[in-house]
Amino acid sequence: MTLAPQLDATHDPQARSWVDSANRAGGEFPIQNLPFAVFRRAGSGEAFRGGVAIGDHILDLAAAADSGVFEGDAARGIRAGALPSLNTLMQLGAPVWRATRRALFENLLVGSPTRDRLQGCLVDRDEAHYELPAHIGDYTDFYASIHHATAVGRMMRPDSPLLANYKWIPIGYHGRSSSIGVSGQTFCRPRGQSLPLGTAMPKVGPSLRLDYELELGIFVGAGNPRGTPIPMADAEDHIFGLCLLNDWSARDIQAWEYQPLGPFLGKNFATTISPWVVTLEALAPFRVAPARPDGDPEPLPYLNSPWNRDAGGIDIRLEAWIQSEAMRGRNEPPHRLSSTSFKHSYWTLAQLVAHHTVNGCDLRAGDLLGTGTQSGPTPAEAGSLLELSAGGTRPIEIAPEEHRTFLQDGDSVMFRGWCEKPGAARIGFGEVIGSVLPARM
Amino acid sequence: MTLAPQLDATHDPQARSWVDSANRAGGEFPIQNLPFAVFRRAGSGEAFRGGVAIGDHILDLAAAADSGVFEGDAARGIRAGALPSLNTLMQLGAPVWRATRRALFENLLVGSPTRDRLQGCLVDRDEAHYELPAHIGDYTDFYASIHHATAVGRMMRPDSPLLANYKWIPIGYHGRSSSIGVSGQTFCRPRGQSLPLGTAMPKVGPSLRLDYELELGIFVGAGNPRGTPIPMADAEDHIFGLCLLNDWSARDIQAWEYQPLGPFLGKNFATTISPWVVTLEALAPFRVAPARPDGDPEPLPYLNSPWNRDAGGIDIRLEAWIQSEAMRGRNEPPHRLSSTSFKHSYWTLAQLVAHHTVNGCDLRAGDLLGTGTQSGPTPAEAGSLLELSAGGTRPIEIAPEEHRTFLQDGDSVMFRGWCEKPGAARIGFGEVIGSVLPARM
Repeated sequence: MTLAPQLDATHDPQARSWVDSANRAGGEFPIQNLPFAVFRRAGSGEAFRGGVAIGDHILDLAAAADSGVFEGDAARGIRAGALPSLNTLMQLGAPVWRATRRALFENLLVGSPTRDRLQGCLVDRDEAHYELPAHIGDYTDFYASIHHATAVGRMMRPDSPLLANYKWIPIGYHGRSSSIGVSGQTFCRPRGQSLPLGTAMPKVGPSLRLDYELELGIFVGAGNPRGTPIPMADAEDHIFGLCLLNDWSARDIQAWEYQPLGPFLGKNFATTISPWVVTLEALAPFRVAPARPDGDPEPLPYLNSPWNRDAGGIDIRLEAWIQSEAMRGRNEPPHRLSSTSFKHSYWTLAQLVAHHTVNGCDLRAGDLLGTGTQSGPTPAEAGSLLELSAGGTRPIEIAPEEHRTFLQDGDSVMFRGWCEKPGAARIGFGEVIGSVLPARM
Repeated sequence: MTLAPQLDATHDPQARSWVDSANRAGGEFPIQNLPFAVFRRAGSGEAFRGGVAIGDHILDLAAAADSGVFEGDAARGIRAGALPSLNTLMQLGAPVWRATRRALFENLLVGSPTRDRLQGCLVDRDEAHYELPAHIGDYTDFYASIHHATAVGRMMRPDSPLLANYKWIPIGYHGRSSSIGVSGQTFCRPRGQSLPLGTAMPKVGPSLRLDYELELGIFVGAGNPRGTPIPMADAEDHIFGLCLLNDWSARDIQAWEYQPLGPFLGKNFATTISPWVVTLEALAPFRVAPARPDGDPEPLPYLNSPWNRDAGGIDIRLEAWIQSEAMRGRNEPPHRLSSTSFKHSYWTLAQLVAHHTVNGCDLRAGDLLGTGTQSGPTPAEAGSLLELSAGGTRPIEIAPEEHRTFLQDGDSVMFRGWCEKPGAARIGFGEVIGSVLPARM
C-alpha cells in the first residue's frame, strides 16, 4: 500500500554531508538526493558497477559493499547495486531501496563514524564513464502531456486536435530497447522513406525533419507476475526511479509510416537517457496534484485513487538546450530552447503503471517507460522542435544568424532536470546529451 | 552475399537417418529438417539446453557437445547450442549454422560410423518440456499480408481499405517481449477499456472480442551494429530460422486505444510461439517468387534485389485449428478454422530485415520479428477470427451447435505449419498451442 510520500530525516534540507561538495548551494547531488548510476573510471578496464552520486563524487557501490559498513537490507541493496547493472537492486523492491537510501544517508552525514571507511570508496564524478543503468528488457513510450498531444494533433487535425480516447487512456506504444544509449550517445542522421509534400511516390534519403522529444524515463523496479495487474495503490512501489530521456524522432519518416500501427523507424534509430536515476523517495518533497482540469472526466476506477488525486504529480523542472557545431567552434554556450515542468503532465506515473498492467501485461525490473514529450501549457514550454517551430514553419534563432526548424548535423541537444522549492533541498537529475552525426552515405 | 538458396546433399529427399522414426512418410522432422529448440525432460530438474529434432527424438546438444563427434565450426555451433538459450548460436552467424547443419546431417545419416556415440544423446520428444528458444531482446511485428491488411482495412474504411503507404513500406510496429511464451502458454482473458458501440464513455472489463493471429516468427541470427543497415543481399544471412507465432489480439481494446500510436494493451498480454525453429536452409527447396502483382510499384531499391524477385517468398502451409472446452469434454478433435500459405505474403523476409535496419536500427541475435497475420487471397484463407467472422457478424460453426465469432474461455487455438512438394522431403514446424483462461475477477 503506497501512502502519501513520506518525508523523513533524509529530506531534511539542513542535513549536511562530510563530502563537502554535496553541501554547495545549487548543487545537483546533495545528501538528500542519492541517485544511482552504473559507471567505471573513463579509460580504465574496470568492471562497470553501480554508484551513488554525492556532490562531485560517486560512492562506488562495489567498494562500499566490501567496506563492511552496511548491514541487513541496506547491505543487500548495496551488494546488488555493486553489479554491472542495477536490475537486481531494482527487483529487490521498495523496502530494500528505502533501507539502502536511509543507510547511505546516515553514513554520508556529517559526523558519521564510518567516514574513514567510506572515504576510500569515493570516485571523482569527472572521471566517470557511464553505462545504461540497467539491462532494459522492454521499453514503452507514453503520450502523457495533453499539451503536446493537442499541439501535434492540431497540425494534423485542426478541427479535432485531441482524439476521443485521450482523456480516458494513457496512450502508449512499445518502443525499441536495442537502440537506447546513455548520455553522450551519437548517432547518424537516419535514412528512410518519406512522402514529399504534394507527391505520390515516396523518396528514400536522410531525414530532413529530425527532432528531439523532452521526456522523463521511468525505471521499473520489482516486476509483476504475468496476468496480475498492479493496482493504483501499489503502482509507485514498482517504480525504482526517474531519469531524463530524449526520444529522438524523424518526423518525415514517422509521418509516412505511422498509419495504421504507430511509430517505428521514425523512432527506433536512437533514444538517449541520462546516467543518473533519481529515486521517487528523493522526489517526495515535490509532489503536487496532477493537472487534470475541472470538468474533465474522472479517471476510471482502475486509474484513480485519493492519493493520486492529491499528490500523483511531481514538479520536476525540465529544460532543453541546443549547441550547434558552429557554436562549439565559437566557444558559445548552448542556447535554451524551452523550459517546462512535469507537473503539467495529464497522466501520472502511477496511472501509467496501472494502465500498462490492467490487461495482465507483466513488467520486469529494469523495464523503461517514457512519459512522452513533456510540453507545458504555453507554446514556449513545448518539448520538441516540431512544436517550437510550428511544424517547421517558424525558424528559431539559436545564435546570431543561426536558426533551426529541425536539427542539423553536428547539433548537440542537452536536457536538464531538477526540483527546487523553498524549504527543500534542490534535487538534480544531471543532464542527458546526444549529438547528430551526418547520415551515412 | 546471399545467393539463391543452394540445394545440397542435406536436401536430398532420398536421404535416410539411422533414427528410424525420422524416415516415416509424412513426418515433421526428417533428416532434411533438423530444427532447433530449447528443452529439458518434463518434470526433471535438468538444465534447459538446445536440441535438434530428428523423428520422434531430440538430439540433446549438451550431450552431443560432450560426445567428441563434432569438429571445427560444427563443434562451435553444437557447443553454443548446448547453452540454455540459442542466442550464442544465433550470433555465431550463417557459416557456423551451415557447418552445424551439415555435420548433424552426416552424423545422423544411415551408416554413419558415429551412430553408437550419438545414440545415447537422443531424448524422446514426448518427454520434452520446452522453453523459449532464445532470450528475446526486442520483438517487432509486421503487417506483411496484403490480404489481411485489406480485409481489416475494409472494416474500418470501406472506401479506401488499403492505406497509401502499404505497397511502399513493410509496415511494422514494436511489440512486447516480456509476455511472449512458448507453446502451451495459457493466459487469462485480458481486461481493459473499450468503447461500446454508440456510446461516448468507455467501459472496463474482460475483452469480448478476443482473437488469434496466424503468423510466422523470424528469429534474428547475427545482429548488425547500430547505424549500419543490412542490405537486401545480406538480409537472409541475418535470419536464424522461423517458427509459428500466435499474436493474440483483443480487438475491442485495440480499437479504442490504437489511435494515434498503434496497438498496445490489445496485444501485449500474451504472444505464443512454437518451440521449434526451422532454419532457412531446411526451407531452401520451397522458395517461390513473392506475390507482388504485376502493375504494383517496384519495391524501392533498398527493398529490391534480383534474387528477391525470383525466390524471396517461401511456400509454407499454415493452418489454424480450434478446440473448445466442450469439444475436449466430448473427446472431439480440433476443428480447422482456415488454411493458407506464407507464399501469399506481400513482403518477404529479406525485405522485413532490410526495412527494419534502413534507418540504422540495430537488430540483436535472438530478436523476434513477426510477419503479421498471414491471410490468403480468399476469405476462407484468413488468419484471424476477425476476418473469418466478418468482424463478428457471421458466426462460424466449430462443432455441432457450437459457434464462434471470437474466442471463448477454455478455447485452445493450435497452428500447424509445414512445407511439402513433389521431389522434396516434407519439412514440418510442429505446432503452437495456447489456451484462454477466464478473466481474473
